[in-house]
Amino acid sequence: MITIADIEAAAARIAGVAHRTPVARCRTLDALAGGRELHFKCEQLQRVGAFKFRGAFNALRSLPREALAAGVVTHSSGNHAQALALAAQLCGATARVVMPRDAKEVKKQAVRGYGAEVTLCEPTLDARQRAADAILAEHGGRFVPPYDDVAIISGQGTVALELLEQAPALDAIIAPVGGGGLLSGVCLAARARAPHVRLFAAEPRGADDCARSMARGELVPQTAPDTIADGLLTSLGELCWPVIRDHVERVITVSDEAIIAAMRLCWTRAKLLIEPSAASAVAAALSEEFRALSGIERVGVVLSGGNVDIDALPW
Amino acid sequence: MITIADIEAAAARIAGVAHRTPVARCRTLDALAGGRELHFKCEQLQRVGAFKFRGAFNALRSLPREALAAGVVTHSSGNHAQALALAAQLCGATARVVMPRDAKEVKKQAVRGYGAEVTLCEPTLDARQRAADAILAEHGGRFVPPYDDVAIISGQGTVALELLEQAPALDAIIAPVGGGGLLSGVCLAARARAPHVRLFAAEPRGADDCARSMARGELVPQTAPDTIADGLLTSLGELCWPVIRDHVERVITVSDEAIIAAMRLCWTRAKLLIEPSAASAVAAALSEEFRALSGIERVGVVLSGGNVDIDALPW
Repeated sequence: MITIADIEAAAARIAGVAHRTPVARCRTLDALAGGRELHFKCEQLQRVGAFKFRGAFNALRSLPREALAAGVVTHSSGNHAQALALAAQLCGATARVVMPRDAKEVKKQAVRGYGAEVTLCEPTLDARQRAADAILAEHGGRFVPPYDDVAIISGQGTVALELLEQAPALDAIIAPVGGGGLLSGVCLAARARAPHVRLFAAEPRGADDCARSMARGELVPQTAPDTIADGLLTSLGELCWPVIRDHVERVITVSDEAIIAAMRLCWTRAKLLIEPSAASAVAAALSEEFRALSGIERVGVVLSGGNVDIDALPW
Repeated sequence: MITIADIEAAAARIAGVAHRTPVARCRTLDALAGGRELHFKCEQLQRVGAFKFRGAFNALRSLPREALAAGVVTHSSGNHAQALALAAQLCGATARVVMPRDAKEVKKQAVRGYGAEVTLCEPTLDARQRAADAILAEHGGRFVPPYDDVAIISGQGTVALELLEQAPALDAIIAPVGGGGLLSGVCLAARARAPHVRLFAAEPRGADDCARSMARGELVPQTAPDTIADGLLTSLGELCWPVIRDHVERVITVSDEAIIAAMRLCWTRAKLLIEPSAASAVAAALSEEFRALSGIERVGVVLSGGNVDIDALPW
């Protein structure tokens, strides 16, 4: 059971190291959202370009010194790998990161650039876990999961603590959902600090395990996800799911087409350089489904990250 | 003679309409700047995507009601056109904007989108001025110049008022220079509020009339400018020049290659979607010439705008 005290403790641990990211506005997007005020929490401006740094740094700062000295291990193809690598560097710990062989070269370089040891493996979840297990058996150290973890969820919840201070009087918050670390952290922080704020998830139609889980009332694992939002391919975590089930009013699923259109709007009109996963939250805010809801004027939209290959844009 | 009182009055006029844009940080760029702290004032997040809105809105808000009713006129191929169009729309005034025939279609559409009447002309400064004169003769109205104007300079100066509040204890500020409206406004605000802050201009090597003017001690007009920084092609204004001459410590000229490299770094590492003109200030901050100066730890870098064609990027 994660409490607001955990999230507040995370906020204290990451203060001065993680950025307090700004909240941006764009009237053009407000108009497209049906005349509502959209308040964009800019986690693409967070260190490593994504909210993931909050959780990773909180997790490492929460470890006792001896555990840190033994090093940390994870597997990730994306932002968590960079976040853990930087967090470990800042804490003076060794990070060993398993990445799929087909991960983008620029991501492997970024992880190595933060001083982590990268081990490549076949691009399956099974191979990733086996490679991580082998590293743990050989070197010891602590496995730091990407989302299904108390310290990680508490760290991600600090996004909402800040957003509620920076944009007071919000009626609703929309956050993207992949594994659910960000969304469940946001739910817990918002419920404690602003219980009236309505909470929404944005999910790609091609990776809609959260929407299916909510419809069925039980955790439905992701199978064969297919979406441009490469940060949202994972299955909902077991710790994250009950939080989301109990606090999220609605999961808004969006097509890849809508995600790309929202991303393009953010780039061209709002000058917010976001990745497709973040654009899914914008697409949800602009959707007919969300616009049809009454009683919502001021909306916090969590832009989760901006790690995108600018040499291979989807337009 | 423009005073801090003019800039403060401008700040009051634009408050609540112009965005108070955030200040962003990026450790990777700090490291590349020689370990200094760079504080990026994000005018790409300003309305119309550039600082130009501040001056245009201040100019229109400064006009008596009868003058506004007669409409406003300008010629511009770029951000000033959009800024004036939006400012006029917000003030309930008619805007007539002369644009060169070869201006990008997306820019013409943006200006029309804000409700302005667009007149196309041949792409020479002379043709632009003649077309604007013809409109003034036919319809009347007030000509609002892009930079060489007290209300415009005062409006742009509000950038520095905010920056100095948001990032206290700066040792230096770098702003790009084209016509000089932004730079001279920044100079006047900074001199009044924080006289110890050292002031620098960033200028493309292919449009270095400011550097040449400083070297010669007198205003040297721009001839045949050639740079990717399309916002900095203009000649220094006559009102702007003496302010710059008296307050700018050094003009740092940067190559288009350095501008593109800085722009790419801002996009990929800092997630700041800026246009080449803004990137010239970043390139200056990263230059050997600027890094060689001693006594500078904390630098404000004015990112002037983010209006770039994302379908025709320079890489």
